[in-house]
Amino acid sequence: MKILKIPFSSLTCILLLLACSPDSQSTSNTKPKEETYQVTRPPAGDNPYQVAFLIMDGVYNTELTAPFDIFHHTVFRDGIRPMRVFTVAKQRNPIITFEGLRIVPDYCYLQDSLPPIDILVVPSAEGHLDVDLKDEAMLSFVRKAAQRAQFVTSHCDGAFVLAKAGLLDGHASTTFPSDIVTYKKMFPQLEVVSDVLFVHDDKFITSAGGAKSFEASLYLCELLYGKEVALKLAKGLVINWNLADVPHAVVGVRM
Amino acid sequence: MKILKIPFSSLTCILLLLACSPDSQSTSNTKPKEETYQVTRPPAGDNPYQVAFLIMDGVYNTELTAPFDIFHHTVFRDGIRPMRVFTVAKQRNPIITFEGLRIVPDYCYLQDSLPPIDILVVPSAEGHLDVDLKDEAMLSFVRKAAQRAQFVTSHCDGAFVLAKAGLLDGHASTTFPSDIVTYKKMFPQLEVVSDVLFVHDDKFITSAGGAKSFEASLYLCELLYGKEVALKLAKGLVINWNLADVPHAVVGVRM
Repeated sequence: MKILKIPFSSLTCILLLLACSPDSQSTSNTKPKEETYQVTRPPAGDNPYQVAFLIMDGVYNTELTAPFDIFHHTVFRDGIRPMRVFTVAKQRNPIITFEGLRIVPDYCYLQDSLPPIDILVVPSAEGHLDVDLKDEAMLSFVRKAAQRAQFVTSHCDGAFVLAKAGLLDGHASTTFPSDIVTYKKMFPQLEVVSDVLFVHDDKFITSAGGAKSFEASLYLCELLYGKEVALKLAKGLVINWNLADVPHAVVGVRM
Repeated sequence: MKILKIPFSSLTCILLLLACSPDSQSTSNTKPKEETYQVTRPPAGDNPYQVAFLIMDGVYNTELTAPFDIFHHTVFRDGIRPMRVFTVAKQRNPIITFEGLRIVPDYCYLQDSLPPIDILVVPSAEGHLDVDLKDEAMLSFVRKAAQRAQFVTSHCDGAFVLAKAGLLDGHASTTFPSDIVTYKKMFPQLEVVSDVLFVHDDKFITSAGGAKSFEASLYLCELLYGKEVALKLAKGLVINWNLADVPHAVVGVRM
């Protein structure tokens, strides 16, 4: 397996140009108004990508919301197949994030009939290095969803869940920088890439996470929709996007 | 009033060094484990900063979670007065974010006895340019909380709420880049700073928002705790922090 790796050293910088022109397009100009608040969803006829975010107690806010926001904002872009984002948990009750937000899951994967999942996102959670890896029901859900999905993405320690589910055997991947050593020890059979913000191998996109979770999500949008759409999605979140400036590794592209 | 402005042009870049050393310190190494999931809170005896996040239907995920995460992670830093973060809403029922997350508020400001708020955060919401500005109960809460608070921060369009509440009269501020023109038109009396990621004037820190909401929050942490703590908070979220690289304006520092 050959890895096309964008060179990156500790002295290399990520260059983000600030999107700050007053006339730049943003989601704030396209958002709908309702008398009673209603989340903007693409009409069913649009056949959106169904994007499931696996949440549980201890999920990290940023690793959940960064991809959630990038993907959701696709509904404001004309002429593309947008994404419908939703959360999936083992429980119906609110989960409590690592930082303390209480989020009501949209679906319970043990009891609900879920939409067919096109893209599965595993955002990372506090227990992903230990207790969560013993949760057979969760791992089983991940395996089944991943089998059907067109793309499976993880952020930060979400890669540990994918690895434990056996999904990353034979694929290159990455995880949270501080947990790379643990990741290699726990899964010695894996091909692990360090010093990149994300790795794309076949249907799997694994990201370093944290505030860099935006990058892997923008990459997938650029892959699906092209650079112009990715640029607009980025601008709406005050990111000046240029994939060439982002250290990453692409092994295979599966569409 | 003199503005100490860090020069910034459209060609100027924000340089973010990637924090990616495998042995770097992160929150994942310091997080506690519980049999039943429990959010890590500093013990009451620690006298934490009480940090309230004003949420409502249409609140933007990233502008809520970026400062929420930076501030919450202070509980893992030794030897400082940490922050206790919580959400405050008009309602008890879950609010629905702009992107569709359903979040259960920690407090209802109309009915609950709130902790004394040391830092008030207004993260931005879909209705902040129009419908929310007619919400007198919300504006009244903001005015009262801001009067007592040591710091009041906004992200993205949160500045519209602070401006409408009359809090920014006589102070320099900024908002979401694409909404600067509207902001100036709606509040012609204000001193508005463009082309910066945040402005700090007296107790008010207003930020451009989006993915750059981390920067204003790290700035406040550097102000309160020093550079070393800010660097560690940043590293935990895969951000290489250097205030000198961030275009911003500081008018006054009030501690």
